[in-house]
Amino acid sequence: MTATAAAPATRLSFQTRPADYKHWSLRIDGDVATLVMSVANDGGLREGYELKLNSYDLGVDIELADALMRLRFEHPEVRCVVVTGNSDRVFCAGANIVMLRTSTHGFKVNFCKYTNETRLGIEDMSAHSNKRFLAALNGTASGGGYELAIACDKILLIDDRNSAVSYPEVPLLGVLPGTGGLTRITDKRKLRRDHCDAFSCVAEGIKGKRAVEWNLVDRLAPLSKWQESVDAMAREMADELPPRDVAGIALPDVGGEPTEDGGVTYQYVMLKLDRDARTATLEIVAPDAGPTTAEEAYAQGAEWWLFQAFRELDDALLQLRFNEPEIALVLVRALGHASTLQQTDALVATSEHWFVSEVRHYVKRVLKRLDLTAKSLYAVIDEDTTFVGTFLELALACDRTYVLNDPDVDVKLGVTAVNGGTYPMSNGISRLETRFLAEPARVAAVLAEAGTLFDAERADELGLATFAPDSIDWEDELRIAVEERASFSPDALTGMEANLRFAGPETMETKIFGRLSAWQNWIFQRPNAVGERGALTCYGTPQSPEFNTQRT
Amino acid sequence: MTATAAAPATRLSFQTRPADYKHWSLRIDGDVATLVMSVANDGGLREGYELKLNSYDLGVDIELADALMRLRFEHPEVRCVVVTGNSDRVFCAGANIVMLRTSTHGFKVNFCKYTNETRLGIEDMSAHSNKRFLAALNGTASGGGYELAIACDKILLIDDRNSAVSYPEVPLLGVLPGTGGLTRITDKRKLRRDHCDAFSCVAEGIKGKRAVEWNLVDRLAPLSKWQESVDAMAREMADELPPRDVAGIALPDVGGEPTEDGGVTYQYVMLKLDRDARTATLEIVAPDAGPTTAEEAYAQGAEWWLFQAFRELDDALLQLRFNEPEIALVLVRALGHASTLQQTDALVATSEHWFVSEVRHYVKRVLKRLDLTAKSLYAVIDEDTTFVGTFLELALACDRTYVLNDPDVDVKLGVTAVNGGTYPMSNGISRLETRFLAEPARVAAVLAEAGTLFDAERADELGLATFAPDSIDWEDELRIAVEERASFSPDALTGMEANLRFAGPETMETKIFGRLSAWQNWIFQRPNAVGERGALTCYGTPQSPEFNTQRT
Repeated sequence: MTATAAAPATRLSFQTRPADYKHWSLRIDGDVATLVMSVANDGGLREGYELKLNSYDLGVDIELADALMRLRFEHPEVRCVVVTGNSDRVFCAGANIVMLRTSTHGFKVNFCKYTNETRLGIEDMSAHSNKRFLAALNGTASGGGYELAIACDKILLIDDRNSAVSYPEVPLLGVLPGTGGLTRITDKRKLRRDHCDAFSCVAEGIKGKRAVEWNLVDRLAPLSKWQESVDAMAREMADELPPRDVAGIALPDVGGEPTEDGGVTYQYVMLKLDRDARTATLEIVAPDAGPTTAEEAYAQGAEWWLFQAFRELDDALLQLRFNEPEIALVLVRALGHASTLQQTDALVATSEHWFVSEVRHYVKRVLKRLDLTAKSLYAVIDEDTTFVGTFLELALACDRTYVLNDPDVDVKLGVTAVNGGTYPMSNGISRLETRFLAEPARVAAVLAEAGTLFDAERADELGLATFAPDSIDWEDELRIAVEERASFSPDALTGMEANLRFAGPETMETKIFGRLSAWQNWIFQRPNAVGERGALTCYGTPQSPEFNTQRT
Repeated sequence: MTATAAAPATRLSFQTRPADYKHWSLRIDGDVATLVMSVANDGGLREGYELKLNSYDLGVDIELADALMRLRFEHPEVRCVVVTGNSDRVFCAGANIVMLRTSTHGFKVNFCKYTNETRLGIEDMSAHSNKRFLAALNGTASGGGYELAIACDKILLIDDRNSAVSYPEVPLLGVLPGTGGLTRITDKRKLRRDHCDAFSCVAEGIKGKRAVEWNLVDRLAPLSKWQESVDAMAREMADELPPRDVAGIALPDVGGEPTEDGGVTYQYVMLKLDRDARTATLEIVAPDAGPTTAEEAYAQGAEWWLFQAFRELDDALLQLRFNEPEIALVLVRALGHASTLQQTDALVATSEHWFVSEVRHYVKRVLKRLDLTAKSLYAVIDEDTTFVGTFLELALACDRTYVLNDPDVDVKLGVTAVNGGTYPMSNGISRLETRFLAEPARVAAVLAEAGTLFDAERADELGLATFAPDSIDWEDELRIAVEERASFSPDALTGMEANLRFAGPETMETKIFGRLSAWQNWIFQRPNAVGERGALTCYGTPQSPEFNTQRT
């Protein structure tokens, strides 16, 4: 660390465990789990706000993300997850307003992104993990609270004459229901657009029959029969899925030792920082051997190298996003034993074992987290690197690949079955398909290389190298490319990468990150939201907002 | 007009004609047209900047849009349009930087939107008007200059060792190639994503063979054979299409008389303003009769009521966007004779006559302009209104429809064949399909009403009424809804509407307006672009930019 570039004062940690939860409790009852939101008022991640009425901050969401991971891995037998609240009149009031108001723009944007990733993780689990989610709204669900509900498969709303679902963002706060909210009402629950409009403008929300008619919720249940209705609906949803009579694996902490330069050393991942250059190097290493059968992998559980390595990578990405805003560019280097990757990938691509499947989908989600990280990414493919199979996806996720073209250096690139679509991007297609949108035949040509390792020359022919300088030019070319990138406007790069990384088809997921988030980020800078008399600033204070009334 | 709410000082006009062009010349030579960009340095729309090096402002784009309309309607015989420049080394330097720097945020956003609509109009013409576009780049095409080129079907670049295509926005200006630029390289020309990244970061651009290899341009032509290469390629492209041996129709000025309240009265359209309430009323009237055959319509040419009405509507929308930023909400009322709409729509939906087809696609584009207008839109369906067929699309484009439910009032709603997909939205599907994404059967149920007129009750059953108050509640309910809308944050409404109006599938077009534009608008507010030491502010001055280096 240098004198000119200080590390952030408070480093956020993304690791937790049920025993330490402040805001949630996770109860398992056979094949039904109940996740109860019971936010501790005084349990905010930092000083200055109270988490009243089950409102949330990043800390609440980190626990939710942890609980979801435990449901996937520790409780494979669970078929229905009931998400409910402990409070009398309120299920969840959404993101905490004072927290938002007192956060930096960068934090707000990253908080929303993380929360979006977590909600999309619920839908991914519903699609791939033999679990259905029931939002059992025991009281009003507002803003982010309702956004959590619509990330679930079904919504049951208590019919007590008071409880409603609502998006108060536009009328009260001058911002958007940005955690997937506007996208899910149009594209998931497919409300009529005029109903979406009316719903998004009525702060007190919609309740009772109209909420069902408009498809805002699936069913109502009277207060007097609340618990039995929840139980019955959960039972019904669980029974729609085949039972999974298997034992989970334990998820110990990911670990990771801070280093002197401000980076982190994990078991398979190393995050190194050069704060002066505003660059990080992210290295991931495949060990010399690994399980070759699902049973072996399952027996190793959280110690299976692939799983541990991607848990570390996930943590490192969150460190970069939240704790290292000054880092402009990440140099990605994959190292280790190609044969381990080839064996591991053979297992990952084909096994139907529940545990291998869960790890596969987890790796997929971490790779998506990489795609969505607002840092420039260069893959550095040179001596000692091993961009093979799952690790090749890391290179394909990068904005550029620099491959050292020197006949004396063995760069080890290789394709495995996983590159054929095991890890789709948010846009629903593989990284190779996205890369070769114009020439689908090139995807087949690359996949035909499976089983062999190839060199820089061949990588270049196949279209995998952005630049392949020889050893005379290598150092200078890379140095200039790194310096140049770090010199550009960070905002222009964020916008450019958000556009260039997602060519081709769009999905609800890409719409959330591309369209909804981009508009929310715009609004999060507008004086009408965050200025001295902006709506977000004034909410809950005696002052009423004053708008610049010009439409843009 | 009241004392508190003044009209803007300079009102922009969107009407022009070739004889008045300052920046373009349009030459017709048989079935090949040549559109030469020759921007007048001193011809800017306002003081304070010089349009050097064929850089453009809104005025240049208004002329381009006019020239495109003339090509469609006055020159149907043209099969290839060559877009080229008059300058020696430069085709077009893109949007003028000093103009951008000295514009308000709202103007920048609306300028980009209009320019995007015009470029998409080129592609629409290529798809539907028997014309191909050849960008004949006689010199460097930078930024918006290259964005204009990739809106064309083919790009021919002069090979003179100097001329390149380039996006200097990210490296030099801290903004994005936001006029479709980033979207078209990924989704239209389908460059590899790493090539997109490298291209978008190299200010001096890419020329010669690499420009062809990366698919940035289609062909190169040496300086010595430039004109013959352009001619040959234009000939080749023209010959790919069937000849169209028909005479065009003349396009007189649209007309329109300013009114005392600041509105405009046209022949079929009335724009009325209530500046105190921040609302406008936009009325469109169908006459008592119209042509029933294509030949009759063709004989009337620009006087065909449908064409004239939508030209007026188009102009009114641009007035609202550029000249009336304070207007929050537009009340849309369609009036006139239902039988005329039914007859006209029968013709529009089925005729293969070139002129009817051009009008059909024009109406489609005006309706898209409405969808993309950042004003709240309420359809007011009450006494005297006639929301039938093409006019029903106006209601379907609105954020809400208020239908007066009074048995004594004849509200005249009706469906015609055009509601079945004659006017697709930017998302590629019809407004009815977008509305009933969850229940496609409802689309068929509505279309089955064709030929009859129905009332409020039936409209409500069909799912066409957001709210259908009776005559006792009507006035209050509408008044409250109007006042409430006008009281909300204009920015939150813009973001909300940009999300809710485009449910379902995405296209290159929706990606341009949803993803690219939203990020550009975000960047257009960031100090790193527009602050005192932002890149856009400093460009071309002795000061170099100073960035807040935090990534967001």
